[in-house]
Amino acid sequence: MANFFEDNQDCKYYLEKWIDWEPLVRFTEYDFKAEDGFTSVEEAVEFYRDILHLVGKFSANEIAPRVEEIDASKHELRDGVVVAPEPVQQIFDGIKELDLHGMCLPRELGGMNCPLLIYYMNSELIGRAETAVMSHHSFHGGIAMAMLMYSILEGSTKYQVDPPKIVETRFADQIADIARGDAWGSMDITEPDAGSDMGALRCKGEQDADGNWYVTGQKIFITSGHGKYHFVVARTEKSKGDDSFEGLKGLSLFLVPAYEGNGVGDRKWLASIEGLEKKMGHHGSATVSAQFDRTPAMLVGQRGDGFKLMLLLMNTARIAVGFESLGLCESAYRLAKEYAAQRPSMGKMIDRHEMIAGYLEDMETDIQAIRALSVYAGYHEEMAQKLRMHLYAFVDEDAPERKELERKQKEHQQKSRAVTPLLKYFASESAVEIARRAIQIHGGVGYTTEYGAEKLMRDALVFPIYEGTSQIQSLMAMKDNLMRVMKQPQTFLREMASARTRSLTGRDEMSRRVAKVQFYCLDAIKHLIVKVAAAKVKDLRHRPMGSWWMKLSKDWDPKRDFAPAMLHAERLTILLTDKAIAEILLDQATRHPERREVLVRFLERAEPRAQYMHNVIT
Amino acid sequence: MANFFEDNQDCKYYLEKWIDWEPLVRFTEYDFKAEDGFTSVEEAVEFYRDILHLVGKFSANEIAPRVEEIDASKHELRDGVVVAPEPVQQIFDGIKELDLHGMCLPRELGGMNCPLLIYYMNSELIGRAETAVMSHHSFHGGIAMAMLMYSILEGSTKYQVDPPKIVETRFADQIADIARGDAWGSMDITEPDAGSDMGALRCKGEQDADGNWYVTGQKIFITSGHGKYHFVVARTEKSKGDDSFEGLKGLSLFLVPAYEGNGVGDRKWLASIEGLEKKMGHHGSATVSAQFDRTPAMLVGQRGDGFKLMLLLMNTARIAVGFESLGLCESAYRLAKEYAAQRPSMGKMIDRHEMIAGYLEDMETDIQAIRALSVYAGYHEEMAQKLRMHLYAFVDEDAPERKELERKQKEHQQKSRAVTPLLKYFASESAVEIARRAIQIHGGVGYTTEYGAEKLMRDALVFPIYEGTSQIQSLMAMKDNLMRVMKQPQTFLREMASARTRSLTGRDEMSRRVAKVQFYCLDAIKHLIVKVAAAKVKDLRHRPMGSWWMKLSKDWDPKRDFAPAMLHAERLTILLTDKAIAEILLDQATRHPERREVLVRFLERAEPRAQYMHNVIT
Repeated sequence: MANFFEDNQDCKYYLEKWIDWEPLVRFTEYDFKAEDGFTSVEEAVEFYRDILHLVGKFSANEIAPRVEEIDASKHELRDGVVVAPEPVQQIFDGIKELDLHGMCLPRELGGMNCPLLIYYMNSELIGRAETAVMSHHSFHGGIAMAMLMYSILEGSTKYQVDPPKIVETRFADQIADIARGDAWGSMDITEPDAGSDMGALRCKGEQDADGNWYVTGQKIFITSGHGKYHFVVARTEKSKGDDSFEGLKGLSLFLVPAYEGNGVGDRKWLASIEGLEKKMGHHGSATVSAQFDRTPAMLVGQRGDGFKLMLLLMNTARIAVGFESLGLCESAYRLAKEYAAQRPSMGKMIDRHEMIAGYLEDMETDIQAIRALSVYAGYHEEMAQKLRMHLYAFVDEDAPERKELERKQKEHQQKSRAVTPLLKYFASESAVEIARRAIQIHGGVGYTTEYGAEKLMRDALVFPIYEGTSQIQSLMAMKDNLMRVMKQPQTFLREMASARTRSLTGRDEMSRRVAKVQFYCLDAIKHLIVKVAAAKVKDLRHRPMGSWWMKLSKDWDPKRDFAPAMLHAERLTILLTDKAIAEILLDQATRHPERREVLVRFLERAEPRAQYMHNVIT
Repeated sequence: MANFFEDNQDCKYYLEKWIDWEPLVRFTEYDFKAEDGFTSVEEAVEFYRDILHLVGKFSANEIAPRVEEIDASKHELRDGVVVAPEPVQQIFDGIKELDLHGMCLPRELGGMNCPLLIYYMNSELIGRAETAVMSHHSFHGGIAMAMLMYSILEGSTKYQVDPPKIVETRFADQIADIARGDAWGSMDITEPDAGSDMGALRCKGEQDADGNWYVTGQKIFITSGHGKYHFVVARTEKSKGDDSFEGLKGLSLFLVPAYEGNGVGDRKWLASIEGLEKKMGHHGSATVSAQFDRTPAMLVGQRGDGFKLMLLLMNTARIAVGFESLGLCESAYRLAKEYAAQRPSMGKMIDRHEMIAGYLEDMETDIQAIRALSVYAGYHEEMAQKLRMHLYAFVDEDAPERKELERKQKEHQQKSRAVTPLLKYFASESAVEIARRAIQIHGGVGYTTEYGAEKLMRDALVFPIYEGTSQIQSLMAMKDNLMRVMKQPQTFLREMASARTRSLTGRDEMSRRVAKVQFYCLDAIKHLIVKVAAAKVKDLRHRPMGSWWMKLSKDWDPKRDFAPAMLHAERLTILLTDKAIAEILLDQATRHPERREVLVRFLERAEPRAQYMHNVIT
């Protein structure tokens, strides 16, 4: 029987060999002290393997066969209620039956207590079958997990220590609703005049004399926004002037139920769903506008925390888009590979023609590169979240181990933050590229609606747009990297010197080649820093970089001061991505000799590309 | 009033300054000796200007406003007849009224006697409004011109010398049908089991005892194949063995009317139109399958000439696709530019953000580069055709000027042949790239069907597939270039040495930089040649290249022997394209100082890209 997990050796490598399960399972399973939890890492991983097997089977046999039907169908808006097309409804009935919405929720909240990483890996499998279905699926468990995370952050979740478990959490009812498969949620951010520019948001949050909050305004482009629980970013504080960054400080986050009750007939609507976007693809998922008119709302966290809290959720969501995109890449690659293996031309199958064989190899290499980056991002994101939870629930303020745990938490957080925009950028851009290649390998039939390649292309094109465009990812990656160097120029210069040395005298050829990619990237950063700094303070150019710190660390405004570098943000992102992936693959090759050939294939493409990007920047 | 020609300074540059009208108009106007022709170059160009003005106006005001309607509509197959949707029908009624189908036909055949180049430029204008409409339009006049060309080639057209004119041509009735706007034609090549691989075609041409020809078989993916006149490639000779190249020799070309009569009711069908492809875009144009069952056919040229004759027509068609793609690029660029100029984000319009501004500049540069290449290709293709016609009609076999004219004809032919695959490749790939950028610049709304960007993307994706895929263009370009070097290694080595010298000591910076791009390209070719030669004859590697000729020129089979280089065909194509465009733009900059900045912008992108491609290949 077809199974999207079992047929994928590269996926299995991560589960079986690469992922360091020990710490992750320990945190997830409350150090094996929970009443009904697993008693060993092996037992837990065995369960995760079963879950991935189950999802792989479901994706291949229940979702994939309905793809054409989903693409041809439409969500409909009837009397203010969005009705899902039949095949989509059937799939979600199936997901509900398998209890998959509670995959990562703690057992005490009705879930299976799987790591987030298993959910991410499940995203690739469902995404490989149908990305719009995966997208809608993610607004179930993903939103429930966000509710829990926010509650922990604001301190409204209570844990007991022995046996360890959650005994109270603010959004317990809402989480239960979602875990049962009776509801889902959405992130309502964009407005007609504010997309990437969240500082320009106008939707209002107001408090009455009794302290109750209400939200008023219009939100658009809400993926799966026809559900019950809306996380709405709204303005609660007056912004000073029209500066966007200033404007971000006036935002707060609200949880806003769009209706009361659950049965479709009983619902009392508190917000109205107004428009259903007509999109070029992603027909399995509804994109709506919503109008809130003094709709009762729950303030999440503190007033003014809206942007910060939304970014936390978006970080997780962006990693999820990475996995979804990966699923689409895998799907397009396999479609093309299969077609090429049975299409004859010039006396042989076209996969034996050098160009087509080259494309297929490039696709495979890109996919393995994305998978390396995404599992890496997912792992560190989860470790950061689990450590945060652990610190919150079980470690006293003055416990001796606290400092060390906090340092570890920060380290994982930084690793996740560093690669998340790279993953979102690279995976989504690759999905478009690989879907395009799949059409091209099919030739004429690829352009028709019959073979599925054009559908993948239409679906792929949303990835570089939603959850933050590729351009926003690039700007974030650039800003983060330049700021890091600005703050610690000495560390950066040492890193650069080390890369140069290793590129010449590294212990083996692979290390030297990875160091070369690192050097191209770091040297490009240096070039951009010099450009940025020179524009800011005219006389810096001829002083040693290590001495800039004092001058530059004051009055720094990324928006204004990074302008000279912004033109190269996308190229720098490609360099940073190649560097990050090369490092991860080198680590794999060092530990597992069978991974060496993946690194070799990757470097064959990454080296000249890094040099090219470096040359254009410098 | 909106006008797609008048609003485009870059288009006008070619008409007013770059094109060398003198020889072209002389050949087109029978050296000003025709009875009712123009009497000077100026008079002719004035007329061409009027035509482009007219088409520019029609495209902007009659076609562009119907785009959404066309995209939403469908061709329908009713009782074996394809019915065009209303808006498409209206546009073609308008084109008929303006007599545009006869644009390039000689006056004596009811046409306006415009140069082919004006038709090509008109393709950009209509393509900018709606590429599928342009595609369908091209199967009117383009097919009529092909009929005339084939008749000249086979010797069935008669000219008189004084006053010069055509007095007889084999397909006069069919040409008149098309010129009146009562019919159009198509090129029927692809079959279910043979796309790019024409050697595998199975459709049969048979002759009865009286010498009458009949065609039997199925053709698929016929663009505008619901018309009257089908150029069908069919097998008339037994192929020896299953070798594809061998198989090409057994093909002949036929002109096959699909029906008799003209009025829809009166038609007697001789072939049946069977399937209407469902495509992701290009909805303004029908793509059909046709079944021929002993359908009466006219043999064009000689038995066995099918492949050669089809290539001639395809060369013209590929240049036309270059211009169509250019039109779509222009359209996507302007859509994005306009949106970016009125969409605020972070306190300014997004076209003031460095990244978006950079994208827009890149798009503009690419468009100007494509236009330079396409006008160059169109000019030389036309000069080659006009000289061929002139030699045929007016120059005796033993005339003293014949040799020189033949040399010139060959020179233009070679120039056209060299750049045609590059143009088809670069323009079609850029159309996809630029449409993609246009979506991305629009952000979320770019993914909806409302703003037109996604429609351009869906339309663009056909360009790299039809009239020979990008991959086929690459292989052709590579094969031609490697063969040329194989045949004349000394010339090549001199060319390379010259590029190297000029890159160091050229008379100005621009010449040096162009020479550098040339050198990267030639050095990459050298590398591929060495690789190919080394694989063929193991002991060549250490001998001077100039001495290979004897050894390599024998028994050369591109299919087998070029295999080691094929993996790099696409990269080499990019190098060849950058080289060709840099040369054309340098020539422009030398003659017209205002063009220098176009060259500068182009080289900023081409130089590092050429180096990158060179590095990957070597």
